[in-house]
Amino acid sequence: MSFTIRSTVSFCLALGLAVLLGLSASRAGAQGAPASAGPPDPELIRDLIAANRTLAEHGIVDAFGHVSVRHNLDPNRFLMSVSRAPELVSESDIVEYTLDAEPVNLRGRSQYSERYIHAEIYKARPDVNAVVHNHSPSVIPFGVSDVPIRPVYHMAGFIGEGLPIFDIREASGITNMLVNDAQRGSALAADLGDRPAVLMRGHGVAVTGPSIPFAVGRSVYLELNAAIQLQAIGLGGSITFLDAAEAQAVLDDGENRSYERPWELWRRRALEQ
Amino acid sequence: MSFTIRSTVSFCLALGLAVLLGLSASRAGAQGAPASAGPPDPELIRDLIAANRTLAEHGIVDAFGHVSVRHNLDPNRFLMSVSRAPELVSESDIVEYTLDAEPVNLRGRSQYSERYIHAEIYKARPDVNAVVHNHSPSVIPFGVSDVPIRPVYHMAGFIGEGLPIFDIREASGITNMLVNDAQRGSALAADLGDRPAVLMRGHGVAVTGPSIPFAVGRSVYLELNAAIQLQAIGLGGSITFLDAAEAQAVLDDGENRSYERPWELWRRRALEQ
Amino acid sequence: MSFTIRSTVSFCLALGLAVLLGLSASRAGAQGAPASAGPPDPELIRDLIAANRTLAEHGIVDAFGHVSVRHNLDPNRFLMSVSRAPELVSESDIVEYTLDAEPVNLRGRSQYSERYIHAEIYKARPDVNAVVHNHSPSVIPFGVSDVPIRPVYHMAGFIGEGLPIFDIREASGITNMLVNDAQRGSALAADLGDRPAVLMRGHGVAVTGPSIPFAVGRSVYLELNAAIQLQAIGLGGSITFLDAAEAQAVLDDGENRSYERPWELWRRRALEQ
Amino acid sequence: MSFTIRSTVSFCLALGLAVLLGLSASRAGAQGAPASAGPPDPELIRDLIAANRTLAEHGIVDAFGHVSVRHNLDPNRFLMSVSRAPELVSESDIVEYTLDAEPVNLRGRSQYSERYIHAEIYKARPDVNAVVHNHSPSVIPFGVSDVPIRPVYHMAGFIGEGLPIFDIREASGITNMLVNDAQRGSALAADLGDRPAVLMRGHGVAVTGPSIPFAVGRSVYLELNAAIQLQAIGLGGSITFLDAAEAQAVLDDGENRSYERPWELWRRRALEQ
Repeated sequence: MSFTIRSTVSFCLALGLAVLLGLSASRAGAQGAPASAGPPDPELIRDLIAANRTLAEHGIVDAFGHVSVRHNLDPNRFLMSVSRAPELVSESDIVEYTLDAEPVNLRGRSQYSERYIHAEIYKARPDVNAVVHNHSPSVIPFGVSDVPIRPVYHMAGFIGEGLPIFDIREASGITNMLVNDAQRGSALAADLGDRPAVLMRGHGVAVTGPSIPFAVGRSVYLELNAAIQLQAIGLGGSITFLDAAEAQAVLDDGENRSYERPWELWRRRALEQ
Repeated sequence: MSFTIRSTVSFCLALGLAVLLGLSASRAGAQGAPASAGPPDPELIRDLIAANRTLAEHGIVDAFGHVSVRHNLDPNRFLMSVSRAPELVSESDIVEYTLDAEPVNLRGRSQYSERYIHAEIYKARPDVNAVVHNHSPSVIPFGVSDVPIRPVYHMAGFIGEGLPIFDIREASGITNMLVNDAQRGSALAADLGDRPAVLMRGHGVAVTGPSIPFAVGRSVYLELNAAIQLQAIGLGGSITFLDAAEAQAVLDDGENRSYERPWELWRRRALEQ
Repeated sequence: MSFTIRSTVSFCLALGLAVLLGLSASRAGAQGAPASAGPPDPELIRDLIAANRTLAEHGIVDAFGHVSVRHNLDPNRFLMSVSRAPELVSESDIVEYTLDAEPVNLRGRSQYSERYIHAEIYKARPDVNAVVHNHSPSVIPFGVSDVPIRPVYHMAGFIGEGLPIFDIREASGITNMLVNDAQRGSALAADLGDRPAVLMRGHGVAVTGPSIPFAVGRSVYLELNAAIQLQAIGLGGSITFLDAAEAQAVLDDGENRSYERPWELWRRRALEQ
Repeated sequence: MSFTIRSTVSFCLALGLAVLLGLSASRAGAQGAPASAGPPDPELIRDLIAANRTLAEHGIVDAFGHVSVRHNLDPNRFLMSVSRAPELVSESDIVEYTLDAEPVNLRGRSQYSERYIHAEIYKARPDVNAVVHNHSPSVIPFGVSDVPIRPVYHMAGFIGEGLPIFDIREASGITNMLVNDAQRGSALAADLGDRPAVLMRGHGVAVTGPSIPFAVGRSVYLELNAAIQLQAIGLGGSITFLDAAEAQAVLDDGENRSYERPWELWRRRALEQ
């Protein structure tokens, strides 16, 4: 009984929301805004909220940085918050974007100026379903140094034989360092190539994955690997990194068990707090 | 009963305090204490409380260090706490100061001995409306080393081509290291020049901004940049810092979107806890 | 009403689960699942839960890593969680294992793939009653460097004249870096020898003890010693490590008073939160 | 009224406690235990509890380390907890000790084996009223390195031209590294001399002060100075430490305003949580 009543209430709320969104979409449509691909899976939205909070809790993002996910109903749409510190992001902040970084349902709110990082990576990489951009503190040194990042342990096997570095100066000369248009975004995506992540000189990193747990997990272990590699270098001796074949074997074996174990922990912490 | 008696006691205490304060104010006035510019904007005071707590939460200040803001009604007045750890500062602790560091409404409370840092910077720099003084742990090494601080990422573009270092010994010989009079304060302000911040040898740093979010944001990202630069140096390779033109472009573009995004986060955390 | 219906539903679910478990147990039994040594001491289980949470709180494990204890009723059995982040482990997650890493009461749940670390160490070392496997961040550098870990202070006297390093490549060639079968586990146990811990190249460490407080305490102080040694090396001068005889005297004297003081603190924090 | 009743209750409790302590002291006296100097000032005990918790909160002590204070009624007595992690110490754990480290009111509880550090320093240094012993992580490297600790900023002016290092091997040959008898304690006190602190090779540090806020404050800023000096060395350039005359001027000026500001913060955090 309780179940029935609750379900009915939930259904009505959902319906109301859908109508609201529909109207909003129509109005937007009238002004030339793109049509929506429809309401995304609520569990995907909850995962996206959990990703925002998890990245903040781990210090991978501070008030800056963002995370997005490809829409489950349409590969040509992705979902990301309006301009807001990840720690504060809630469901009502999530906006649907086209792969040209055009918002579907912005309703006058402020946007992340670097949404082009996400849009252009989704455009170039059909295998990517989640993107994180951050200023991960131990990773930044490797983006400004000629000492390359290398995998010091299996948790960062995805680094393989190293990661590309995007230098915005090569693509666009002197800039404000922000990837805030399509040209810069597509230059970044080109440097990313088929790798899981690309460092950004004097800025941060863009990390990708086939799902949110992969993109968040790789962001966390990229920071950890960088911090550990820094310490290993500090010892002053010679270092044995993961062999390229070992790194590949880690990936072939499912890469950290698809990050299921950390994701159970992180999602619970993020959503049950 | 207990409540009634307590209330009565409280009322009597309050009355006594009011009488005392009245007397004290009169006496002070009789001795030439400066007149007040009037009650500041309550939102500015709330921002100042939030700034105190935010700096403490980020480890930018510990029990020492302080933050001030120029009075919204009079550019010749600024507002700052009595001598108290920033984490504990509340509205009743805020004192109005003249630009000679004379308190308007001290009422016998203890003062920060280094209020001259603030007073002399406000005097020399009409564009500055907020000042932070702190002992930011990763910044101190750059104040005692001949290795200069440089911007490793766009968040610290305000560092530009480097920051001046104030050596109190040059201004005042052997001292207790404190900027606790007008002469030392004005020597510090002279070294600051038109830059956003000045390192203090063997001591800490003074950070300025056109508003509280700028002064707090720059304090946070100066510490982060210092920590990241330290790590980059630890890698042992060569480092590419932000180009001077890139740093300038960051500023021209609004410098981290005027720190609006972190300030929304930090203020909320500070005041809603 | 709501309560009644929910209770009924719960009851049915519980019944269904019980039937399922019964069937599953029967089937497993039919397929030769080992018999249980009987219910372990509840206090031992509570210690094991406390160990999981303590290791997580200290950053010795994150979502990965695990801790086990030998069964109090049978030296040929040990107890460890199903595949779950240590911070989340509760009593119902604890599984009984044989020394061949065969689960007694798994009931279809997912397992740690590296349970062979524990099984093979218990097999080879009758004096060991607790094992921790972790990716302790400051220890990993010493597993990939030719600079050996050494005891910088008495709390890590158990390091003695250094610790062995297990390189999985020597035992098994190119792998996914995981000790996920008996052959790899026994090669690790062979490298461990009679020492309290063995570093694992490009991976982490396995730490042992005669009881849970020892294995957890050594894990914590191994990480601390590594971090302090890294800093000592960073000073650039020469370092005086504990003399081998001093390290031995620390052990002979009861090794940090059998970790009773930290264990009182850690267990209380873990179980009373 | 409320006040009167409460006072009466408090008085009765105090009386009961005094009687209890008196009886206990008599019984102990019959067995040859030293007589008590009488009940210490309750505010001093509260300060001692706050010191224990503050040192734990700042990571200056973990489960090991301890803090003591000289008895306010008798300079030949000091007060310290029974063997317990500082974070857990409460009023009932405080024991009165003679300057020979003999407990007055132990009642069968376990003691810190290194109480001789405290006893021998109080014996040798009438100006010292509070002692902290800890394994402060950034200080330990300076106790095992030939690179001396030096003051990098005014908060650590008490370091002056450096601190002595006690090497237990010089006093007692090969040991368990613990200062657990009077001979080792007096050798440590001799190395301390008239300085505020003495590093202990391969172990930690002993820090003193004329009061609890000084001993705790110096412990906190000694750790901070060590961490900052480590970072300054990591920059690779030349470092300007506080001039000896500057360090002396810091002390002559009252040394960090007698740590009143941090103590207000720390005590409040420790006791109001």
